[in-house]
Amino acid sequence: MAVYTRVSAEEISGFLERYDVGTLTSVKGIAEGVENSNYLIETDQARFILTLYEKRVNPDDLPFFIALLDHLAARGLPVPPMLADRYGQKIQHLAGRTACLIQFLPGVSVSHPTAQQAFATGAALGRMHDALADFQGHRPNSMNKASWHALAEACGPEALDAIAEGLADRVSQELVFLDSNWPVSAPQSAIHADLFPDNVLMLGDDVTGLIDFYFSCTDIRGYDLAVTHAAWCFSEDGSQFLPQVSSHLLTGYRQSFPGAEDSDDPAVLSILARGAALRFLLTRAYDWINTPADAMVTRKDPLAFFRRLEFYARPENQTIFAS
Amino acid sequence: MAVYTRVSAEEISGFLERYDVGTLTSVKGIAEGVENSNYLIETDQARFILTLYEKRVNPDDLPFFIALLDHLAARGLPVPPMLADRYGQKIQHLAGRTACLIQFLPGVSVSHPTAQQAFATGAALGRMHDALADFQGHRPNSMNKASWHALAEACGPEALDAIAEGLADRVSQELVFLDSNWPVSAPQSAIHADLFPDNVLMLGDDVTGLIDFYFSCTDIRGYDLAVTHAAWCFSEDGSQFLPQVSSHLLTGYRQSFPGAEDSDDPAVLSILARGAALRFLLTRAYDWINTPADAMVTRKDPLAFFRRLEFYARPENQTIFAS
Repeated sequence: MAVYTRVSAEEISGFLERYDVGTLTSVKGIAEGVENSNYLIETDQARFILTLYEKRVNPDDLPFFIALLDHLAARGLPVPPMLADRYGQKIQHLAGRTACLIQFLPGVSVSHPTAQQAFATGAALGRMHDALADFQGHRPNSMNKASWHALAEACGPEALDAIAEGLADRVSQELVFLDSNWPVSAPQSAIHADLFPDNVLMLGDDVTGLIDFYFSCTDIRGYDLAVTHAAWCFSEDGSQFLPQVSSHLLTGYRQSFPGAEDSDDPAVLSILARGAALRFLLTRAYDWINTPADAMVTRKDPLAFFRRLEFYARPENQTIFAS
Repeated sequence: MAVYTRVSAEEISGFLERYDVGTLTSVKGIAEGVENSNYLIETDQARFILTLYEKRVNPDDLPFFIALLDHLAARGLPVPPMLADRYGQKIQHLAGRTACLIQFLPGVSVSHPTAQQAFATGAALGRMHDALADFQGHRPNSMNKASWHALAEACGPEALDAIAEGLADRVSQELVFLDSNWPVSAPQSAIHADLFPDNVLMLGDDVTGLIDFYFSCTDIRGYDLAVTHAAWCFSEDGSQFLPQVSSHLLTGYRQSFPGAEDSDDPAVLSILARGAALRFLLTRAYDWINTPADAMVTRKDPLAFFRRLEFYARPENQTIFAS
């Protein structure tokens, strides 16, 4: 992660005059989030994040993200809304990029979540899903199950097998399995779809921020829980399942969103979790194959999610989703 | 610039327990300074910069930098000292790197300095030199004139000529000229040696921070003024000399450090400025030649400093240094 578009302090200072946020006192380019350029900005009144959208975010999707964040903020969820300027505008242009000024939230992203932190995160996810039950916005999931076939093909069998012997076959089998077993009639909702520990800000055991909604979309609601489970409940390399973290995450979710019966079927959650693991296996494999080993971007190990996939695929492990 | 070494929030939180600085509330990796990893850290008490030193900074040099910053801070200069932990230690180890916790300073780095901002910067440089007159520390300048020969050789004549036709010859001539004319008996002092606009924090027309002392060393004092002049008094690409910015920078310096008679000789300053321009021409050329064009690091144009060199080398331009 890096700052891709450089903006001078003078430009930022001029940009802030559109807003009623005080005078610029500090600017630091920060290495954070998906591939956008982010600046941590301070004025004599408050702190903000200035985001310039690079190639991975389609500016046409911003109205969906903005409506979603406004909806969640209005319901008291700790999300960072985009700020409106004096003229009511939230989507701006700066240094040749689409840009937004965003509320700063305190908190840190933990790398080794405790069970209590997983409980709080599950609870925040449940409250978010509860709040989204009447959200009207709609955005297709560009990373949905259908896209995984194309992603596997774009990787190619040789490159997949170069990552690990037999990986290409295993991916093909899994795609066949998921096509036959995907719970297509499960309840849908707006979802975060990327709630990794990186995207949760915490102070101690409390969630102070849910951030980085740039993969948010409409899809099976339980899939969001499955992604969060895959992201939180294993050692980073996927070799260790963390049963306490898992049970606390699920309990936190179910307690804060009791109406979500779709979160109670272990067989369904198990399939969604296999899908979630495959999704990150494939996007990481694609990036691995297409990023030179000596590039300054850190390549994330696809096998960390292959190990999760294999864990979820073992029938005896379905029980971890039982309530 | 990027974050090279990743440190978890848990590690940083544990690290801060050595200090009396409160509890961690926010961590952002920032893209700043020479090639170190920097985090902007916030606790419930204050903000700090956490720096992990990468290959460009030799940990053995840290005691010099720390003594220099303490000396300047004690004299009221706006520099960011390294903080001592509860045990009096300033140099730490974190995530396999030598690390320091550093005071945060407000202010922004301007990209298009005004004459008033140049005046304030010249004045801050003068006050710094005045304060350093009795500083006892000593560190050889690893980027001194002697090193420029090796740097030109490491670039190689073909690669230099590939940047601009005739550049290799022009560099050789300049090295010969500087060897014959360098003011070897001019007063020496500890100097910053890299006071580009990036390394000066400002609020409006006031200097609020002099930062990034990792090139600071002992060398000819007027050379520091020459580096600052070359860095501030031209359009970025070096094609435009900015006479108002130049005269204000020099006036600010001379008014705040009236004892510096060595800053009053236009012939000497002109030679030092040619040296400063050649130094940045050569380091930029070296980086240009050794950085792939598609790397994520921005390569800085060496010709921006070749143009400055050609400007300083024209005899009629010596007059810009007259007081």
